Amino acid sequence: MNFNEEQVILEISSIFSRSNKSNPQVIVGIGDDAAVVQTDQHSVITTDMAIEGVHFKRQWSSAYEIGSKITVANLADVYAMGADPRYLVVALTLTGTEELSWIKELAQGIADTAAKSDSVVVGGDLSRAEQIMISMTAVGSSRLHITRSGARAGDLIYVSALPGFSRAGFEILTKNLPHSPAIARALSQFKSPELDPAVMRSFKSAHSLCDVSDSLLVQAEQISKASSVAFEIDTKKIESCDEFADLVAIAQTIGCDIWDFVLGGGEDHVLLATGVNLPGICIGRVIEGSGVKVLEMKKAPESWRHFN
Amino acid sequence: MNFNEEQVILEISSIFSRSNKSNPQVIVGIGDDAAVVQTDQHSVITTDMAIEGVHFKRQWSSAYEIGSKITVANLADVYAMGADPRYLVVALTLTGTEELSWIKELAQGIADTAAKSDSVVVGGDLSRAEQIMISMTAVGSSRLHITRSGARAGDLIYVSALPGFSRAGFEILTKNLPHSPAIARALSQFKSPELDPAVMRSFKSAHSLCDVSDSLLVQAEQISKASSVAFEIDTKKIESCDEFADLVAIAQTIGCDIWDFVLGGGEDHVLLATGVNLPGICIGRVIEGSGVKVLEMKKAPESWRHFN
Repeated sequence: MNFNEEQVILEISSIFSRSNKSNPQVIVGIGDDAAVVQTDQHSVITTDMAIEGVHFKRQWSSAYEIGSKITVANLADVYAMGADPRYLVVALTLTGTEELSWIKELAQGIADTAAKSDSVVVGGDLSRAEQIMISMTAVGSSRLHITRSGARAGDLIYVSALPGFSRAGFEILTKNLPHSPAIARALSQFKSPELDPAVMRSFKSAHSLCDVSDSLLVQAEQISKASSVAFEIDTKKIESCDEFADLVAIAQTIGCDIWDFVLGGGEDHVLLATGVNLPGICIGRVIEGSGVKVLEMKKAPESWRHFN
Repeated sequence: MNFNEEQVILEISSIFSRSNKSNPQVIVGIGDDAAVVQTDQHSVITTDMAIEGVHFKRQWSSAYEIGSKITVANLADVYAMGADPRYLVVALTLTGTEELSWIKELAQGIADTAAKSDSVVVGGDLSRAEQIMISMTAVGSSRLHITRSGARAGDLIYVSALPGFSRAGFEILTKNLPHSPAIARALSQFKSPELDPAVMRSFKSAHSLCDVSDSLLVQAEQISKASSVAFEIDTKKIESCDEFADLVAIAQTIGCDIWDFVLGGGEDHVLLATGVNLPGICIGRVIEGSGVKVLEMKKAPESWRHFN
């Protein structure tokens, strides 16, 4: 055992408490039975967890990256409702073999990523377990809310950025392929996906909105079903976006089909939106009917799921 | 594998969704990226988890009891701020060996316990792991908030009920003692602690308030430190409460020191409060100074902690 519970709580609380004190919306921060915070009339609540061996490996990612990634997953779900993240709580299990420095780095990755989205960790829980598990809940402020059920025939379909880099990074790590500058972006996107709050907030006029956490195809199917419309995704449009050549180069380097990444990959936490005149990359259109049709596509890639 | 992820999500969502639909404060319930709910100007947020082998064992407790207990732990933290619980989210890991019926029972235990406190599960996450882990976050509505730092010299000290039954139940199970009607209450309190919303809400005029989750002594120290006052706990007052004889009988049956239970036991989730004319059991008084003094006490029991 490299630490005791009280020491860990003290160190983690100290990292998170700094931002509590400078945030006037946090009335009672870390250290009581619960935090007391200011909320608006409508709040959004979401929870997402990361389990060692399932969602991350310590030999693949630094503690900072692991902390950042699970935070991005939670923040993205808040943005995906057209809301703004405000507060996070973190439940963490440790095996007892972690160095204190590793734990502090994990907390710092969470705190820094939260801060970039004007969010603050206001509470947590700690326990021992056989695996490291980070379970996070995000609470956001919602003046409006954009669900998966608002897509209409005539909408265009957008993604906030090209998805697939994270899935490519996962392939590289799983197959233990040699690292090179050519594939650096994929590795970095898997280990610690980027989340630009300005981009995430720029979809507030969308008719329907969703975070691509499983895969573009899975999420397209979800919006299509919830909205009772059909999605027509045009691979030619995707091919014409700026980042496509980069991902093609990565796919070729590692010997994979790029569409497995673009359509089947998740965890980049890009937004999938429908509407008109939205930012990002237009990848198709919403029509009457049901289901997701991918135009000019040879085979439908498998989505990346747990439990299957 | 006795189930697949989609089947589990469908079954659990179905159990939780019923109460979503009948609750006008839930604007978007389970099934989107996040829930959208009505909140007041101030909310409280808390998180608490239960890990198999650390907080519960499947051979000791039914799935329903396990679900109920972690829900009580979260609700109690909300009540312990003088607030009212409203919304819960649940992150659950499964090993893949659980029967679907066990999982449904767990969800039902959560849903029923939440409903008794006018709360509703509005979201969740599911993953595979080597252990069952239930991580829950509760969001409550807070018109006022009562912290640990409001105790004043002159206050009386109260508990909402006699703590110790849960710790006694834990001893019985750990030592594999024979079950008998005489110890039934301790077992039941460990497996599924009672939480009476009316009692929990009756402490809103307290000056300081705290949930006894670790132990009466640990929580008394926390309030004493946060409030910069001294606690004087009178064991004679505790001995004169109605339930004391029951706990004495249990302690004698299992051959333990009752004060290990009363002062050292947690997880009954009774409230510890200071103030004047409060309900519950008066167990002492707040005086100037620091620390916790237990009057007429021979030895200070160890508190029950993880990681130590």
